[in-house]
Amino acid sequence: MNDSVQLLGVSNAIVDVLAPVSHEFLAELGSLPGSMNLIDAEQAAAIYDKMGPATERSGGSVANTIAAFANLGGRAAYIGRVADDQLGEVFAHDMRSLAVDMRRPPRPAQAATARCYVMVTPDGQRTMHTYLGACLELDTSDITEDTLGVPQVVLIEGYLLDAPHGPALIDKAIEIAREHGSEVALSLSDAFCVERHLHTFLRLVNDSVDIVIADDSEAFMLFGTDNLEEAIAAAAELGNLFAITRSADGSVIVRGKERIDIDANPVDRVVDTTGAGDAYAAGFLYAYAQDKPLRACAQLGSWCGAQAVQKLGARFESGNLAHRTEAD
Amino acid sequence: MNDSVQLLGVSNAIVDVLAPVSHEFLAELGSLPGSMNLIDAEQAAAIYDKMGPATERSGGSVANTIAAFANLGGRAAYIGRVADDQLGEVFAHDMRSLAVDMRRPPRPAQAATARCYVMVTPDGQRTMHTYLGACLELDTSDITEDTLGVPQVVLIEGYLLDAPHGPALIDKAIEIAREHGSEVALSLSDAFCVERHLHTFLRLVNDSVDIVIADDSEAFMLFGTDNLEEAIAAAAELGNLFAITRSADGSVIVRGKERIDIDANPVDRVVDTTGAGDAYAAGFLYAYAQDKPLRACAQLGSWCGAQAVQKLGARFESGNLAHRTEAD
Repeated sequence: MNDSVQLLGVSNAIVDVLAPVSHEFLAELGSLPGSMNLIDAEQAAAIYDKMGPATERSGGSVANTIAAFANLGGRAAYIGRVADDQLGEVFAHDMRSLAVDMRRPPRPAQAATARCYVMVTPDGQRTMHTYLGACLELDTSDITEDTLGVPQVVLIEGYLLDAPHGPALIDKAIEIAREHGSEVALSLSDAFCVERHLHTFLRLVNDSVDIVIADDSEAFMLFGTDNLEEAIAAAAELGNLFAITRSADGSVIVRGKERIDIDANPVDRVVDTTGAGDAYAAGFLYAYAQDKPLRACAQLGSWCGAQAVQKLGARFESGNLAHRTEAD
Repeated sequence: MNDSVQLLGVSNAIVDVLAPVSHEFLAELGSLPGSMNLIDAEQAAAIYDKMGPATERSGGSVANTIAAFANLGGRAAYIGRVADDQLGEVFAHDMRSLAVDMRRPPRPAQAATARCYVMVTPDGQRTMHTYLGACLELDTSDITEDTLGVPQVVLIEGYLLDAPHGPALIDKAIEIAREHGSEVALSLSDAFCVERHLHTFLRLVNDSVDIVIADDSEAFMLFGTDNLEEAIAAAAELGNLFAITRSADGSVIVRGKERIDIDANPVDRVVDTTGAGDAYAAGFLYAYAQDKPLRACAQLGSWCGAQAVQKLGARFESGNLAHRTEAD
């Protein structure tokens, strides 16, 4: 138990397999550009077979946020399930090398460590096919007072609801966080994920969550609208702190009647939008954990998001942000 | 056996683990910047422990050449030893996805698939620490008339001499190539490797090899000089075809009295010199396999080398070269 931890993430621990592809390739797969698709082991093998040469890199949405948060200089911890295979060791290494406290180390699992085939089209858009593998074996025994500790904020990934024990372990994490005074942040992950588990998301946002991290499509799905102002009004009524990202249109922070609109940081060239939202969350929560004003939180979020879209892959290079942190 | 193969590589099959590092980090490790160091499993674990977050990507010098050759549109095959672990499957996938005929698929091994920690300093220089793992289990049983077939050129990696069965399997590959009329190319790999096995390299170049691929430091070591003109004179006397790369100073082709000097292609920004020589070899041999004049071979080599230094990692992205190939 490390009480000085600022942010602890609970999420699907995934290794990304990144490859550039054409739109024709996606059409052949029958995959909607920009979508995240869950696949089983057999589909994973078939898709990998068709894919070109790839680069492997630790990924996972909230895991990316945790890595970027640590790279900014934040004290971070992480709970996720990897097998004791080579990709599981890669995932754990990459976390530990950023001084992230891996509360659940690699250990034997029935399935291999999870992989996400991230296919990047020439326009920088990502289309994902995720084989959850060992992630499906994360369960409530992984979430205890010992593993959770008392971080300032517990960040929970919406995608966890796709796993069988997801709802139970999220409830347990929230219960422990509440008891010890940690704030709870929830990433809505993906509009289709919100759609798949709408009632659970609504219950969590209504009852238990302090901070909601979402992009506009996820917020729209949550509130059953396709209008930004309606979504903002609905968020305002709930009273939680909402950080809603809008890609090139910046982001909106809403907390009750308080509302802050922030422009996106200028970007020279969009290489890959993978992880822009994850990076935004890292910057936002890094400033938040230091009690900065919400405007400053959103500004650091925007800056981190802009860094992420200018390179291939969801994670910052080590050292990328050290300069920024020193300059602050 | 596929007689239409233009280039077959025999080499150490390695997965690169790429990470940006500072010069201070290398100094702490006691590693000479730009060096290639062989390490054992224990050292590999200790170094990995100290390294920052990394990216995994198929590598290996001659393996990179084979991948780039295939990406140019060449018909390629490959012999190397990987274990049936996740990194071995990654290596095999990346080769197959470029239509490279993997003559030795992943299979059980005593050690894990080889890894090379490629540490890239801010000046774009690479310093490597290689754990050979399963590569040490490549032996003469992997080199047969069936696995070798009758390619136009067999490209052998000098680094193989660091493995216990290296000398015997190189001799066997050359013998089969000779019998069936394949040409033999040898990559000198690394000046320290040439130093470690100088007599064997001299024997191979004197007796058996048609084409020698080297950078200037490797040629200097082979001929016991530090003077380019002396090295060129020594190469001319031997009569083999030499392609000697000189980084920013271009390359020199020597075959007996014939000599061609080629400028390096202009480069906007050096990101990482990893694999520039491997890429040069791919371009050179791709043109060579099509009976292009030596000047054209060297020019395509230079162009490929310039592409390689402008990005992180030793391999071309899939599709990078398709444009070029179509335009030719």
